[in-house]
Amino acid sequence: MTKEFNIRLIAKILGSLLVIEGFFFVLCMAVDLYYGENIWIYFLQSAGIALVLGFVGVLLGRKASPQIGKREGSVIVTMTWLLFSCVGMMPFVLSGSIPSVTDAFFETMSGFTTTGASVLNNIEELPHSILFWRSTTHWIGGLGIIVISMALLPVFGFSGMYIFSAEATGPTKDKIHPKISETAKRLLGIYVVLTLSETILLKVAGMSWFDAVCHSFATIATGGFSTRQSSIGAYNSPAIEYIVIFFMIFSGINFSLYYFLFKQKIAKVFHNEEFRVYLLIIGVFTVLLTLTHLYKLDFSFSSFEDTLRNSLFVVSSTISTTGFVTVDYGIWPTYTWIMVIVLMLIGSSAGSTAGGMKVVRVLLTFKYSYYEFKRLIHPNAVFPVRYNDHVMEDGVITRILSFVIVYIMLIVVGSLLLSFAGMDFVEALTGQITCLSNVGPGLGKIGPAFSFSELSVASKWILSASMMIGRLELFTVLVIFTPVFWKK
Amino acid sequence: MTKEFNIRLIAKILGSLLVIEGFFFVLCMAVDLYYGENIWIYFLQSAGIALVLGFVGVLLGRKASPQIGKREGSVIVTMTWLLFSCVGMMPFVLSGSIPSVTDAFFETMSGFTTTGASVLNNIEELPHSILFWRSTTHWIGGLGIIVISMALLPVFGFSGMYIFSAEATGPTKDKIHPKISETAKRLLGIYVVLTLSETILLKVAGMSWFDAVCHSFATIATGGFSTRQSSIGAYNSPAIEYIVIFFMIFSGINFSLYYFLFKQKIAKVFHNEEFRVYLLIIGVFTVLLTLTHLYKLDFSFSSFEDTLRNSLFVVSSTISTTGFVTVDYGIWPTYTWIMVIVLMLIGSSAGSTAGGMKVVRVLLTFKYSYYEFKRLIHPNAVFPVRYNDHVMEDGVITRILSFVIVYIMLIVVGSLLLSFAGMDFVEALTGQITCLSNVGPGLGKIGPAFSFSELSVASKWILSASMMIGRLELFTVLVIFTPVFWKK
Repeated sequence: MTKEFNIRLIAKILGSLLVIEGFFFVLCMAVDLYYGENIWIYFLQSAGIALVLGFVGVLLGRKASPQIGKREGSVIVTMTWLLFSCVGMMPFVLSGSIPSVTDAFFETMSGFTTTGASVLNNIEELPHSILFWRSTTHWIGGLGIIVISMALLPVFGFSGMYIFSAEATGPTKDKIHPKISETAKRLLGIYVVLTLSETILLKVAGMSWFDAVCHSFATIATGGFSTRQSSIGAYNSPAIEYIVIFFMIFSGINFSLYYFLFKQKIAKVFHNEEFRVYLLIIGVFTVLLTLTHLYKLDFSFSSFEDTLRNSLFVVSSTISTTGFVTVDYGIWPTYTWIMVIVLMLIGSSAGSTAGGMKVVRVLLTFKYSYYEFKRLIHPNAVFPVRYNDHVMEDGVITRILSFVIVYIMLIVVGSLLLSFAGMDFVEALTGQITCLSNVGPGLGKIGPAFSFSELSVASKWILSASMMIGRLELFTVLVIFTPVFWKK
Repeated sequence: MTKEFNIRLIAKILGSLLVIEGFFFVLCMAVDLYYGENIWIYFLQSAGIALVLGFVGVLLGRKASPQIGKREGSVIVTMTWLLFSCVGMMPFVLSGSIPSVTDAFFETMSGFTTTGASVLNNIEELPHSILFWRSTTHWIGGLGIIVISMALLPVFGFSGMYIFSAEATGPTKDKIHPKISETAKRLLGIYVVLTLSETILLKVAGMSWFDAVCHSFATIATGGFSTRQSSIGAYNSPAIEYIVIFFMIFSGINFSLYYFLFKQKIAKVFHNEEFRVYLLIIGVFTVLLTLTHLYKLDFSFSSFEDTLRNSLFVVSSTISTTGFVTVDYGIWPTYTWIMVIVLMLIGSSAGSTAGGMKVVRVLLTFKYSYYEFKRLIHPNAVFPVRYNDHVMEDGVITRILSFVIVYIMLIVVGSLLLSFAGMDFVEALTGQITCLSNVGPGLGKIGPAFSFSELSVASKWILSASMMIGRLELFTVLVIFTPVFWKK
């Protein structure tokens, strides 16, 4: 790591990505022209800024050497989310839809990190193009995280995430470039197919094309922005709810499993431990919530099907870290809150668009903890921790344990900062968890029936940072702030 | 571990310990006769039961082989706390001071685990002998945990705690018995000297002898039961508060450091990393709380000294997991709550009477997490984690990480169970944390100004279990419930 920090290459890559963002602004301009709401000028301005900045970056980096290391990887990934949010908030600010810079940045970061926490209280009043851009931030962010975690980060040497992708053959140095683009193309294909499928089904179930596209963007990215203030609940349609439920669950699955499915290796899909545990958790929590509603609560849904569907909705929306809402579970009793918090912390599969700690990490943490119990009784025996029939190396296990611990430290530190910034206990704690896990709604005054608009400016910036740190799996961002990163 | 489970030896040891408990009842009888409050008969009855049970145990175990393994160690330690609480609650129930068995068990377990969470709302009305017994449970529990963690558990092979005692030379098999009794005697000596010193100082500062003894018992054991409903606050005496502050801090120090002090190896004491970090945490949190009160809060104390003293009191009472109270910090703003929760989680030093995760574990967890950052940048370099200049083995580090993770899992599971049992969110979460860390007061309706009396029966049993699991450092108790423990 004594090599020169390759800042030119960083400029080049970030520049190219900004150019892509610029083209998405042009798309939004077209949407505005179609609906005739006369705010296309703001998208044109935003596109202009994005393209100019982008070309400057590309120009600066035109003589960049292709040498890239972990440190550059970390900076590129972090700066991508930061720059995209800074540029991406411009249509919101310029059009006056979200006049405050703090609010607009929060909303955009929430979009790109596929969190879905919103400061908006007047969603239905906003122009179509603005809502379309808002949903598009999800779609870009979801695609970005998949490509980065499955195709790019392994190349930079961040094998922590890669180890869990179903194809464990690491790229060798001279095969890097074909490997990246091949994997990325395959992932893009799966992503587009899922998005199209859901869009069509939602349209068939009664949504407008516009709503269908926006909700599909938000589902596949496990984002959670809706075009309605009361989210999916606004449609009052069991069919729509079931479609959204299934696609939320689909989006929480490791994308490489779709590749196996495509190759008709279905046995391999169901043999995947993370996938089975993921389905198991959804099943158990849904049954628990349903039983709770049937036997313990005074208020209830209209029928068994209604109870089951809404319980399943809350569970799949939370574990997939989407954050869509049909009912206000903020008024359900405390233990359902804790169940929701547990689901937020777990999150879905590695290699999906979902956030949270990831099922595989939680699973291996449990396995390893049990191993410690065994070791207490039989100190000299060796009990290997297995995952998908492979014995996990010690290095992988300790990396997972320290990930979990850093996650919890961030929850504690974040809650403390948020409470310094004026938030109450429940809001500070669940706000930090929901943002770090990229879910969306918290509990209490930031619960499913409310928005994040009332929070202080400082709170919004802290939560924005948490969304980014959580989205990029902690270490990618945090390592930049360690002395070892900057030491020659 | 194919050896026969040595149940006779377990009976013998538990029997002997119950005989000791019986003698403490006789002591309480004497206290009652002195104060003439006419409830000595209940202590006599309790003593009778303890002695009869004790002698039966000794008789059953008279032919026991001295063979002892980890499994026996685990059962003995767990059963000691359980049996002591079952027998120890009798004076409360028989005398009608705490008529409910649930409440009496909770109070006694809270005493023996040196937690100090109380169900009592009428402390001043209770007879002296009952209050004396209540404080004595702390003193016995504190002594017990010191002797077990420093002298006995290492012999059973639970080296997890022993590794942190300052004398890292493990006992060899043929030296076990002299080693145990020598170490235990030394620890008892330090414990008695600390207790006597505080008693005399509290008396000099204006407490009655009775109050001085009871509070000294509760301080040195880091328990927290007071003879006044409003705890230390009732005395309204800065001198008493300072004395209690210093002895709370003293009680959170690894007892083997007192041995070094006694041998005039002061440099070695201050070289101890855990000790220095412990003092650092107390310092930093006290300064933060003081600044908060001086600059941020509307309400304030009468003077700078008053502010500083009360801040220091809350910090040292919480980190030492004592739980004495001078002011109701439940009405302070949220971020002070989170600071209090962080202190509860950290706790004090290994080898002290305090609970919590222990400073050394938190310290090494931080060090190790930073090591993971380093490894991210320099994957092939080796960065050993050091503690007191020694390189920590990987096995020790992973044991600590999994301890921290199991601790957090227990907080989540406990909060969930408590909320099922009817507690609200803040109460369920902080109740579980305060009991698992053996502190005492929680927040909200179980905060410093309240008691645990209003909780449901189920909640009290769950919290009692948490106190025991936390006191015995999780694994000692939990391992009994794993299949591997019972497998031949």
